[in-house]
Amino acid sequence: MRQSSFSCIRIGIAALLVPFALPGNSPGQAPHSASSAISRAGMSMPRGKAKKEQRKSGRAVTPESIVRISRIEVDPARISEYLVLVAECGRKSMAQESGVLLMYSMQEKRHPERIAVLEIYADRAAYEHHIKTSHFRKYKQNSLAMVRKLELIDQNPLVPEMKMK
Amino acid sequence: MRQSSFSCIRIGIAALLVPFALPGNSPGQAPHSASSAISRAGMSMPRGKAKKEQRKSGRAVTPESIVRISRIEVDPARISEYLVLVAECGRKSMAQESGVLLMYSMQEKRHPERIAVLEIYADRAAYEHHIKTSHFRKYKQNSLAMVRKLELIDQNPLVPEMKMK
Repeated sequence: MRQSSFSCIRIGIAALLVPFALPGNSPGQAPHSASSAISRAGMSMPRGKAKKEQRKSGRAVTPESIVRISRIEVDPARISEYLVLVAECGRKSMAQESGVLLMYSMQEKRHPERIAVLEIYADRAAYEHHIKTSHFRKYKQNSLAMVRKLELIDQNPLVPEMKMK
Repeated sequence: MRQSSFSCIRIGIAALLVPFALPGNSPGQAPHSASSAISRAGMSMPRGKAKKEQRKSGRAVTPESIVRISRIEVDPARISEYLVLVAECGRKSMAQESGVLLMYSMQEKRHPERIAVLEIYADRAAYEHHIKTSHFRKYKQNSLAMVRKLELIDQNPLVPEMKMK
């Protein structure tokens, strides 16, 4: 059962349902919340410093946030098209959705058909808003025939207040 | 050969050499640079806007940067100890090394023994400095017996100027 939640998903009509259907999408369902991971590791930040970080960044990653690595395998013949689609969706999501804190897409240097996207949503509502946007639906529809495998792997951030320089 | 560069690496004395020895660690060796990935995808940013982003962030991700996902599998009996070590190394690297632009560590919700770290180094020199620091060497030495598998997967960022909110 644990394995099945991580088995790669053949893309088809079902792909449109994956973000809704895949186990572990709801932070509430997960066996470990960000806060529990942090407290286990004794890594909680002093409240004052955390608030300062939050003011500085404008948005904070909290135990209600969704931190996810999406791993995508693309048809090698359609990589260039796919890169444009995924980058456009990331740019628009960051520009137009205050609840999308990061959508950082990457292509493996040695396996260019393998894409990873680090996605951070402020909370469940921000994620649910995101998958209803026109730019996400355009990406999903237009990439459907390009994507061979998809994994959505929900994460607990170990230093949630960390921001890129 | 391509496969071998992604085979999981049994941790032992060799682990200390992995950051130096694993193929693909040098952006120069990679078949695709960040700039080529971006130009293929037609995603390059107007020069003025890119410079503004750079001023805002202080450091920019460039084709010389190293963007890497490290995937680590930890002895389930030692996860709590490992989380403290990896988080401490990430905090100190961000606080003390100007060339470490991000060291974002995450624990899979459904496989808590699986850790991923998104590491962004301004350039090769910043990476080489990092692996010589006392906090990295402490992490590497103390985690040696906890880590069962390690993959270092170099990436081309598709929207390199993107920053977390």
